[in-house]
Amino acid sequence: MIHIYTGNGKGKTTSAIGLAIRALGHSKKVCLIQFMKKNFVYGEIQFLKNIPNIDIYQFGTVELVDINNPADIDFVEAQNGLEKAKQVLSDANYDLVILDELNVVLYFRLLKIEQVIDIIKNANKGLELVITGRYANEKLLALADLITEMKEVRHYYKKGIKARKGIEF
Amino acid sequence: MIHIYTGNGKGKTTSAIGLAIRALGHSKKVCLIQFMKKNFVYGEIQFLKNIPNIDIYQFGTVELVDINNPADIDFVEAQNGLEKAKQVLSDANYDLVILDELNVVLYFRLLKIEQVIDIIKNANKGLELVITGRYANEKLLALADLITEMKEVRHYYKKGIKARKGIEF
Repeated sequence: MIHIYTGNGKGKTTSAIGLAIRALGHSKKVCLIQFMKKNFVYGEIQFLKNIPNIDIYQFGTVELVDINNPADIDFVEAQNGLEKAKQVLSDANYDLVILDELNVVLYFRLLKIEQVIDIIKNANKGLELVITGRYANEKLLALADLITEMKEVRHYYKKGIKARKGIEF
Repeated sequence: MIHIYTGNGKGKTTSAIGLAIRALGHSKKVCLIQFMKKNFVYGEIQFLKNIPNIDIYQFGTVELVDINNPADIDFVEAQNGLEKAKQVLSDANYDLVILDELNVVLYFRLLKIEQVIDIIKNANKGLELVITGRYANEKLLALADLITEMKEVRHYYKKGIKARKGIEF
């Protein structure tokens, strides 16, 4: 099954992490591939890096990608992430694979949608694939078995509250 | 801050669990109170019950509540859950408190909204409170700093796929 968690509201990456925990609780094997993140300060990574049965890979830089002018490294990291995803998706060892922020990678055109569709179509049929991020691509949505739109109804950042350790990262 | 995760889509409880993991990764202290659930087969509970710094309580029965005719035990469990929540919300020891499925408890009228608002208004100001479940009450929404509606765009249960271990529970 392919899940897509998209939308502008809080809860996309955290729901993927929660799903990972649920799967781990049933002794399933999980792979978390994060795109556009190279930052181990995330609480979920601090926690999960010491947990058995979950492998974590990050592809990105510590800098935010400039959507109007992505750097060469952004394309290289996205491509490396895609290669890792391809390998993992064909590995029968994994039950759940999370491609965190892949939607945003596509929105930023760091990868071509055809490349992503190709690896998904060739994925091991037994596994559960979770893709997160805003701005999900229509062609990807067409392949999904489950789509949840996390819709922002209200958010405290509009009151000027900055990202807080343990809550936003 | 008060977060409410509501809506009919998949990802409400899992996002709360993901938030718990993020907080735990930064050595924060978490309390997870689950309403309308008394079932340790949930993967997230299997996993989290052995983790330090998170306390878990469940109030409910293994049976589903009959919305048209809730049993006495459903009211008793909801009330016991509220008492525990009251105690935990005034405990300065906790950084993050999750009241999972509390929205549904209110929708089923197992508790009065005034009772819930009362304990929230008296909660320790430093903590992060997360409330999940469909059908969030308007009076509760009015108090929230953050609201995400998890909107079902597509769900595989409509293709006849039943709840699966490690994914739905």
